[in-house]
Amino acid sequence: MGKCVNHPERETSYKCMKHNIYLCDECLACRDPELYCKYRSACPIWFMNKGSKRLSESDEAAEAAGEYTVKFQPDEKSVDVEAGETLLDAARKADVYINASCNGKGACGKCKLIIESGEIEKTETALLSDREKQKGYVLACQTRVKGPVWVRVPEETIERKLKVAGMGEEVTRKLQGLVTDVQPMLEKVPMELTPPTLDDSVSDLDRLRRGLAQKGVDTSRLSIGLEVMQELAASMRNENWRVTALLMHKSCSSEVVAVEPGDTSQSDLGLAIDIGTTTIVVYLVDMIGGRILAATSGHNRQSSCGDDVINRIVCAEKNGVKKLSTLALSTINTLIKEAVDGVGVDFKEIHNVVVSGNTTMTHLLLKIEPRYIRREPYIPSISEFPVLKSGNIGLKANPNAAVYVMPGPASYVGGDIVSGVLYSGLNRESELTLFIDVGTNGEIVLGNQDWLICASCSAGPAFEGGGIRWGMRAEEGAIEGVTIDPYTFDPTLKTIADDAPRGICGSGMIELLSEMMLVGIIDQRGKFQLPAGHPRMGAIGDEPAYILAYANETPMEEDLVYTESDIDNLLRSKGAVYAGFTVLLNQVGVTFDMIDRVIITGGFGQFLDIEKSIAIGLLPDIDRNKFQYDGNSSIGGAYMALLSDAHRKTAKEVCNAMTYLDFSTNTSFMDEFTSALFLPHTNMEQFPSIMKRLKETAN
Amino acid sequence: MGKCVNHPERETSYKCMKHNIYLCDECLACRDPELYCKYRSACPIWFMNKGSKRLSESDEAAEAAGEYTVKFQPDEKSVDVEAGETLLDAARKADVYINASCNGKGACGKCKLIIESGEIEKTETALLSDREKQKGYVLACQTRVKGPVWVRVPEETIERKLKVAGMGEEVTRKLQGLVTDVQPMLEKVPMELTPPTLDDSVSDLDRLRRGLAQKGVDTSRLSIGLEVMQELAASMRNENWRVTALLMHKSCSSEVVAVEPGDTSQSDLGLAIDIGTTTIVVYLVDMIGGRILAATSGHNRQSSCGDDVINRIVCAEKNGVKKLSTLALSTINTLIKEAVDGVGVDFKEIHNVVVSGNTTMTHLLLKIEPRYIRREPYIPSISEFPVLKSGNIGLKANPNAAVYVMPGPASYVGGDIVSGVLYSGLNRESELTLFIDVGTNGEIVLGNQDWLICASCSAGPAFEGGGIRWGMRAEEGAIEGVTIDPYTFDPTLKTIADDAPRGICGSGMIELLSEMMLVGIIDQRGKFQLPAGHPRMGAIGDEPAYILAYANETPMEEDLVYTESDIDNLLRSKGAVYAGFTVLLNQVGVTFDMIDRVIITGGFGQFLDIEKSIAIGLLPDIDRNKFQYDGNSSIGGAYMALLSDAHRKTAKEVCNAMTYLDFSTNTSFMDEFTSALFLPHTNMEQFPSIMKRLKETAN
Repeated sequence: MGKCVNHPERETSYKCMKHNIYLCDECLACRDPELYCKYRSACPIWFMNKGSKRLSESDEAAEAAGEYTVKFQPDEKSVDVEAGETLLDAARKADVYINASCNGKGACGKCKLIIESGEIEKTETALLSDREKQKGYVLACQTRVKGPVWVRVPEETIERKLKVAGMGEEVTRKLQGLVTDVQPMLEKVPMELTPPTLDDSVSDLDRLRRGLAQKGVDTSRLSIGLEVMQELAASMRNENWRVTALLMHKSCSSEVVAVEPGDTSQSDLGLAIDIGTTTIVVYLVDMIGGRILAATSGHNRQSSCGDDVINRIVCAEKNGVKKLSTLALSTINTLIKEAVDGVGVDFKEIHNVVVSGNTTMTHLLLKIEPRYIRREPYIPSISEFPVLKSGNIGLKANPNAAVYVMPGPASYVGGDIVSGVLYSGLNRESELTLFIDVGTNGEIVLGNQDWLICASCSAGPAFEGGGIRWGMRAEEGAIEGVTIDPYTFDPTLKTIADDAPRGICGSGMIELLSEMMLVGIIDQRGKFQLPAGHPRMGAIGDEPAYILAYANETPMEEDLVYTESDIDNLLRSKGAVYAGFTVLLNQVGVTFDMIDRVIITGGFGQFLDIEKSIAIGLLPDIDRNKFQYDGNSSIGGAYMALLSDAHRKTAKEVCNAMTYLDFSTNTSFMDEFTSALFLPHTNMEQFPSIMKRLKETAN
Repeated sequence: MGKCVNHPERETSYKCMKHNIYLCDECLACRDPELYCKYRSACPIWFMNKGSKRLSESDEAAEAAGEYTVKFQPDEKSVDVEAGETLLDAARKADVYINASCNGKGACGKCKLIIESGEIEKTETALLSDREKQKGYVLACQTRVKGPVWVRVPEETIERKLKVAGMGEEVTRKLQGLVTDVQPMLEKVPMELTPPTLDDSVSDLDRLRRGLAQKGVDTSRLSIGLEVMQELAASMRNENWRVTALLMHKSCSSEVVAVEPGDTSQSDLGLAIDIGTTTIVVYLVDMIGGRILAATSGHNRQSSCGDDVINRIVCAEKNGVKKLSTLALSTINTLIKEAVDGVGVDFKEIHNVVVSGNTTMTHLLLKIEPRYIRREPYIPSISEFPVLKSGNIGLKANPNAAVYVMPGPASYVGGDIVSGVLYSGLNRESELTLFIDVGTNGEIVLGNQDWLICASCSAGPAFEGGGIRWGMRAEEGAIEGVTIDPYTFDPTLKTIADDAPRGICGSGMIELLSEMMLVGIIDQRGKFQLPAGHPRMGAIGDEPAYILAYANETPMEEDLVYTESDIDNLLRSKGAVYAGFTVLLNQVGVTFDMIDRVIITGGFGQFLDIEKSIAIGLLPDIDRNKFQYDGNSSIGGAYMALLSDAHRKTAKEVCNAMTYLDFSTNTSFMDEFTSALFLPHTNMEQFPSIMKRLKETAN
């Protein structure tokens, strides 16, 4: 022990070895050791105070702690990850969206990245060609960070802006026509209250109730939260007793969710949100009049956890439902920001929100346990949601905004389908209608104003590009249309945005399959008939494949091919959907010719060629005029429910009226599925027009 | 630059002078420098990592930051405060409860402390005698900390445990008799649900609803929160579909606030809480049967912010309402803990709570703006509260517990009075009753089952010991009874707990005043008639005073006196209350002799001598048998409302039925007040029995 050199009154045990002086705790912890020592840069005190700040910002400090920086090109985003994390983890952290259909299992081969420099450790994979490996390609999920890494996201991995069902004045007019009486869930009630006097000294809350009663509000079923009460005195006096009460109308009562000083009823915005497994669409709506002010759309960031709902649920079980919720929320909130910034309004003006999505999407968004959705007997936790508050969910809107979630009758027929039925008017008309939404999951509704039956069949990921070597979503560069010359077997390709072909999307595959069958490249079982030496025939390993585009025609500088396994996958998808139709119709004793109308909805349906879909046996061989494309009916229904209380009530009625037919234990479904694994079908009599064409071609 | 001794691949600039080795940043920032050095205790790295933790807890570190430790005796509590803070601040921080009636204005002279050692800076005060100053007395609010200080809380400043209205089997039986049908707000509904199958695949929530409907619950008005939905799937499956739903019954709907796995309906506890301005009382109640399991009481810690509601509101305006809420909550939660620990139960079993308190107390507890309560036209923010959740308030109970706050009709007639009326049965009987709760504020209710009128008069703090030199609350050592020998003028004192006299409480003052008047020490104006030389006559400055106890008889070793100003203060208090009676009766055309019953309630009323209270003109001169003491009627009513829905409804009816008469602008009140500033009254004909006694004494 000794006396501190600066504070002689203090005893201390620390002695500096360099100067042979004692320093007290204050001097030791001092922010400026330069005062006490000239050997600064060799002094650990100096180093820990002055030096450490500099260090913590540098790469060196990160390295010391076993963290490395991963930089992504062309986005120029970078992120620090711990040694041993995968590049897929890094991309998710860095907000770099790359395709990962299989959720990091190393199974889909989609998450390709090019290593430009740096230390990595990779697991060998058969999903990359030798040429790709030579170019430095790796699978992000199979590559671990061992040092600072620079990577490039290749052309075909970049998730480009999806083609979204078009928005415009026409849609707005159509939607506005469907809403006659605007009645939002959260209503703004402006009032001028009488100031209190000694003769009229009721409490602030009673004065507010009196004002509301004068405005015709039923105050007998009115609730109010503690926070509103805490602010009430100030809110009421701030603008001299002129206030606007925000009333949230629930099923059995109303809640005063806020009391704002002054009259704030002049502006009021709403959101209709369609949470698709792949794409999320947001409409920003003027609640006074119903005009759509902006529409934005983007990839659901959950895609980094897998393409389909099953992978998402598995991911939620592994990583917690919060992670999936955050991914969806961040997508939605980015889209909301884009919309409000574009229009130049404040997101706090958003007081009403309707969310439409399938059962898994709504459960994940709301952090509700989804695991029993994928386990027999397939039970959703919630099918009909109470009106919620935006602030509790995390949506970028006024925290008090009322959020209505479209009800869904079953684990695999969700609110998006109820929304679609509402928009399509199925439930309002007498015509017998078959409503279909084909994607990874094929949802089918059959019925009219008197009855509704619904089912869902697992179509698999093929229509969305999953499980297909060069499959991709309907993004720029995707082949969406194909015709094949019956003599040369050369294809004519139509790509989205007329870009060089990067892959093939669902509609392109249907056209390809139909063309290959009709020109005889494949037989009705889907097997190649062209000789191996034909210039259009290639191979992936032992497997024959049709070359859609040669390497020099693609940005990847590789042959873009369609293999026999790809054909099998597509056959299974179309077979499942068609089997679904058949079983549902049989269940209610209806035949295809009794159907008055087939409504196709969803992003995938937009590009569907009806004739070619019938040719491969995806759609039934009936009068082509009966087919109708309804666009994104899920967002349409959400818009209707946003504005109209009557439509919200109808949505619940529709949900309750739908009888759900479960295929998973249905023995006839398996039989029908097997029969449908043929082009167009084992029972050719169900496809008379195709039978006729095939005969004509054969002749 | 050199290579790190532990990580040779790293270049670093830091060189340890002791060992002549280089250390990299990681080694320098390492949590265990002991690995690298044997000169640990002289190594600043060691010191800053190992030593600093120890240091931060020491006084020295606090001193370095300009903070000083204040130690309180005899509690042995200590606290660090910044230089310049007052000892009152320090006491509040240290949870040492000292009297501060005026809330730190330096006006009441109650917050006396004795400085034992240390550096302070004090403002001169006339409220301490020279002898006190010699002994080291200071006023805590007028003394600032300038260095470490040791203080002693003197005898008369210590707030001892209050005498609380007694609890026991008798009270329990009386209370249980008042509740016939137990219906808590939060009801536990145990259910055995049918597990789902493919044929019965409704959602978890629908299954729960079905179960509730089978139990007779009206599920059409059922709401459920997001958090419950998020946990629902797990809760329902955890105990194999046996669950207990917790339903909170609100005025217009019910909310499922929790779903617990298994049957948890066997134990259920409730709390009745009376938040008095001075004292808080908590009953822990078995909701199955209504037995009172424990009763605890303690000082409202808000007392450190002033004795009366006005000072509390001022304090809230200055320091924020949150501070006052925290003080009340910490008192309540300590009492709850004491109760549940005593009985050996878990506070999470508490699912129902009723809070009774005056309007200011309920506003402060719930952090609702109180400032307009004290400003004309005296508007409370809330008079009738919705059912709240314990977790939102901060009570130590199950976070989902339902909290009912007794409604109060006006700013100065609150839920405690409604509670009292409920308990006293005023509203159920035909007898004309005058209900009074005398304290700092005198609340008066007049009426019967047909009508109720109420008012409040500001009695001032005298009855609670405020504004009186040796005034104190009814604690141990307080003079609560006085008789005076008419010949020697020597008093016979009765003190609480038979302690040596430390001061005089309200009931003692009433007896003293009555005795002094009847033996002629004072005249009917309250002026001293004894000659200055009389051994019982002393003086404080120029002011004459009656010596109740000589210095050698008191623990303070000072004369315990009652001055002429003290008499004036008491006259004003009793005058205000009596004027209140008169104006209220006049308002409805009732005379004192028409009253069938006078119910006295509240802690102060317990020790009131009716005869002497009439003698000084505090109570009307009517048949003594009509007076009745009801104990703590506020907690009684809270207990009733806790168990019975009917009583909760009645409480609201009573609140709405009460006509409030405001005295603040009532001109006749000022006239009546002036007339009542006489012993017993200017109009002696209102006090025939006292007039008779005075005549007898004079003769």
